[in-house]
Amino acid sequence: MKKRGKGQLIVLSGPSGVGKSTVIAELFSQRENIYFSISYTTRQPRVGEQNGVNYHFVTREEFEGMIARQELLEHAEYVGNYYGTSQKVIDEKLEAGIDVLLDIEVKGAAKVRARRPDALFIFVIPPSFEELSRRLHARNTDSEDVIQGRLEKAREEFSQIPNYDYLVINDKVSNAVEEISAILKASECKVANRETIYKGVFAL
Amino acid sequence: MKKRGKGQLIVLSGPSGVGKSTVIAELFSQRENIYFSISYTTRQPRVGEQNGVNYHFVTREEFEGMIARQELLEHAEYVGNYYGTSQKVIDEKLEAGIDVLLDIEVKGAAKVRARRPDALFIFVIPPSFEELSRRLHARNTDSEDVIQGRLEKAREEFSQIPNYDYLVINDKVSNAVEEISAILKASECKVANRETIYKGVFAL
Repeated sequence: MKKRGKGQLIVLSGPSGVGKSTVIAELFSQRENIYFSISYTTRQPRVGEQNGVNYHFVTREEFEGMIARQELLEHAEYVGNYYGTSQKVIDEKLEAGIDVLLDIEVKGAAKVRARRPDALFIFVIPPSFEELSRRLHARNTDSEDVIQGRLEKAREEFSQIPNYDYLVINDKVSNAVEEISAILKASECKVANRETIYKGVFAL
Repeated sequence: MKKRGKGQLIVLSGPSGVGKSTVIAELFSQRENIYFSISYTTRQPRVGEQNGVNYHFVTREEFEGMIARQELLEHAEYVGNYYGTSQKVIDEKLEAGIDVLLDIEVKGAAKVRARRPDALFIFVIPPSFEELSRRLHARNTDSEDVIQGRLEKAREEFSQIPNYDYLVINDKVSNAVEEISAILKASECKVANRETIYKGVFAL
């Protein structure tokens, strides 16, 4: 019996340092039929970045073409460069029954919410603010000023939590992954997502 | 870190023969902090039925006292006997952080929905109508007439599925239990249910 219909659109946000990338990597290692949406950008690749892995690197003309053809779910311009998410790719995956995960900051998420209120909006928090600070320091990549800036930004982002559906606590990667998996499974069980099944089974 | 606040009210419905009792027994064997709400009734105990296990058996005067004191979440009269659910007991459990499960048919569920729209409404279906018929026959307890009556009633009940939040498919007990567990875990992660946590953590 086929229990799944279309894929689910998942929007994941959370402050820098919360450990989202590790959680996503672990989630993807455990699940099938889930696709990580890779953003498009007009900025130059940094050393080590690969086209189609970190970003889809495109020209300004190509990006503006996507805007004109309304192929983008959301886009923004930062420091003279475009960043955006392809609606077209997402829709193709969802239609094929594949879940699509967007790792996106709160402003982009708000734009997605306006167009796709049916998506699952998940915000990842650390167990405490002190722990977030500790994780940012442990990375050993940023100056104290940059870290303080990230913590300040985190506070702003937390104020957007009420706009999300779910709050996942990354006290331990395995716990956070378990919570996200439960959210995805529960969503599959929503009556709206199983309409085809019960109407088929009971010839309603 | 305390991740749970109040308990969750869970309303489980599904047609006779779908295997709800087995699913509930297995769910309860796997979970802590979950309470099965035992109905009150004025009917006489049948052979083998125990007070406080199958039902709380009370007198008509006691039951009408509960109605008068508005202690019941829902109640109805069938064939001259009262049946009802104590709101008081449920509230005490939920306040103590314990989930409460009501095994209740669609009409009672509708009454609960009117007063507690925040509850989780879950409907359990068989993988097919033929399978439901097979399970009812396999019980070997009912006459063909009674079975046909139950199947007819099941069709009526299925028409109420759009009023539920979640649809769980009992193709296999372990699958159904896994789905219900995911629904409960996802519900714990809802932003509304974790308000105290994030407001506490981030001093918002």
